[in-house]
Amino acid sequence: MFISKNPDFVATIHEKLKGQHFMNHIGFRITRIEAGEVEGEIELTNFLKQQNGFLHGGATATLCDLVAGFAAFTLVEKGSTVVTVELKISYLNPGTASKIYARGWVLKTGNTLSFCEAEVWSEENGNKIDIAKASTTMAKVIIPA
Amino acid sequence: MFISKNPDFVATIHEKLKGQHFMNHIGFRITRIEAGEVEGEIELTNFLKQQNGFLHGGATATLCDLVAGFAAFTLVEKGSTVVTVELKISYLNPGTASKIYARGWVLKTGNTLSFCEAEVWSEENGNKIDIAKASTTMAKVIIPA
Amino acid sequence: MFISKNPDFVATIHEKLKGQHFMNHIGFRITRIEAGEVEGEIELTNFLKQQNGFLHGGATATLCDLVAGFAAFTLVEKGSTVVTVELKISYLNPGTASKIYARGWVLKTGNTLSFCEAEVWSEENGNKIDIAKASTTMAKVIIPA
Amino acid sequence: MFISKNPDFVATIHEKLKGQHFMNHIGFRITRIEAGEVEGEIELTNFLKQQNGFLHGGATATLCDLVAGFAAFTLVEKGSTVVTVELKISYLNPGTASKIYARGWVLKTGNTLSFCEAEVWSEENGNKIDIAKASTTMAKVIIPA
Repeated sequence: MFISKNPDFVATIHEKLKGQHFMNHIGFRITRIEAGEVEGEIELTNFLKQQNGFLHGGATATLCDLVAGFAAFTLVEKGSTVVTVELKISYLNPGTASKIYARGWVLKTGNTLSFCEAEVWSEENGNKIDIAKASTTMAKVIIPA
Repeated sequence: MFISKNPDFVATIHEKLKGQHFMNHIGFRITRIEAGEVEGEIELTNFLKQQNGFLHGGATATLCDLVAGFAAFTLVEKGSTVVTVELKISYLNPGTASKIYARGWVLKTGNTLSFCEAEVWSEENGNKIDIAKASTTMAKVIIPA
Repeated sequence: MFISKNPDFVATIHEKLKGQHFMNHIGFRITRIEAGEVEGEIELTNFLKQQNGFLHGGATATLCDLVAGFAAFTLVEKGSTVVTVELKISYLNPGTASKIYARGWVLKTGNTLSFCEAEVWSEENGNKIDIAKASTTMAKVIIPA
Repeated sequence: MFISKNPDFVATIHEKLKGQHFMNHIGFRITRIEAGEVEGEIELTNFLKQQNGFLHGGATATLCDLVAGFAAFTLVEKGSTVVTVELKISYLNPGTASKIYARGWVLKTGNTLSFCEAEVWSEENGNKIDIAKASTTMAKVIIPA
């Protein structure tokens, strides 16, 4: 559906991941990278919880930001990166499962801006439990040489 | 401006903070609690950064969620809590200072829903640097006895 | 997918439409009503345009609000209505075609709140042109007897 | 607070207003134009209402889009215009007064993007009734010569 301007986008993302301190700190792993779509997962460790034992809303927003941002990043040319302009997240159900999944995808990409969405979910007894849905704008930024 | 339905809201919040694993993990401290308004701060430690060394957008959203949620929580009666329905955050400037501040406040509170806002900023040479602004809906939930 | 609490929801919506002054004024017609999903269309008449001849962003938001609100409304029991708590809209492409379509659907419905989405599009040479995507929270309100 | 790149921004806006079909159609009047801030008002005529007699949420969003967009537009150089990237609106109270006011202002303006906010309100017995608050991203577009 989308054609990347960077033929090595998978390698470029793996390189970029090394410096993602916050992502690595919370233990989020990217499991799938395609042009315009990125998926990953995280264990619901204790420190990610709010006071009721659910995945913290801020951690949920972090997952959305990560997968949507990487989804936009798959499409830009080498030497550019993307930053989040804004993100809106709706909290559909509490995140209680031991493993949480996140997927981000590009709705539309232009010269500078990309509109993306993201979803966070878990799986219980074969059913998908929707935890959150996000809508976001990403902007391409050319990295100074 | 706002009158809390919980005369002990400061003590109630301090009690609630103990279970805030994610907030405590990232080192966020509440520094001011008033009816309808809460303020706090955090050190920009390395693990909170994204790949360019800035405060991660997900961490920024977490700060907004915390202060806005606590601001709404100051106004509800004992035995109730608040959950985040949705949150939108706009990223105004990168967060680069060693100390980051966040403030949340209630715009309007009703029987169930509270509309809140939050801002995240730093201070450099006496100037306020706006890092993010958020708008959020919080819902009151009665805690089962 | 969704089961309505109102077996007569199609008739109830048609009754409700009569009082929808703004919707009727701009000429929006509902073309499909199902449990949790509503679709409609509008002609891009001159007064709906902004200065470049495109569908005005406010009119686009109006279409999203209408179809998302009606989608939520299909699911509530008789004697209740829904109001929009908040709506976020992303503008993907300018709306230039003579006929504009809108579809709203429910992501999740709870006791009080429904999370909905909406899209606005046109069709040109058999291709779907995405004009806007919206995410919204609707709240059920019991109509006083 | 903001310095416009267009010394004639007031005249430029008045010129731009002529082509604002939807704005003129609903009867919205700009009453104040400053660098980074625009205010206006509208009569709550019958066709702007939803089924309960309140200002329609789509009309409310339209007012926010207009004043925020014009606020951003005051700051860009001649030959450029602004388009709405995204807009989020929270509905605080129903709009029931005969006259409705709207104000938009710029939070931060960059090379391409401006972050703006808008509020819609009425006045009853000397009190300000908050109807809606919006947060929006505007993008500068260079008009082809």
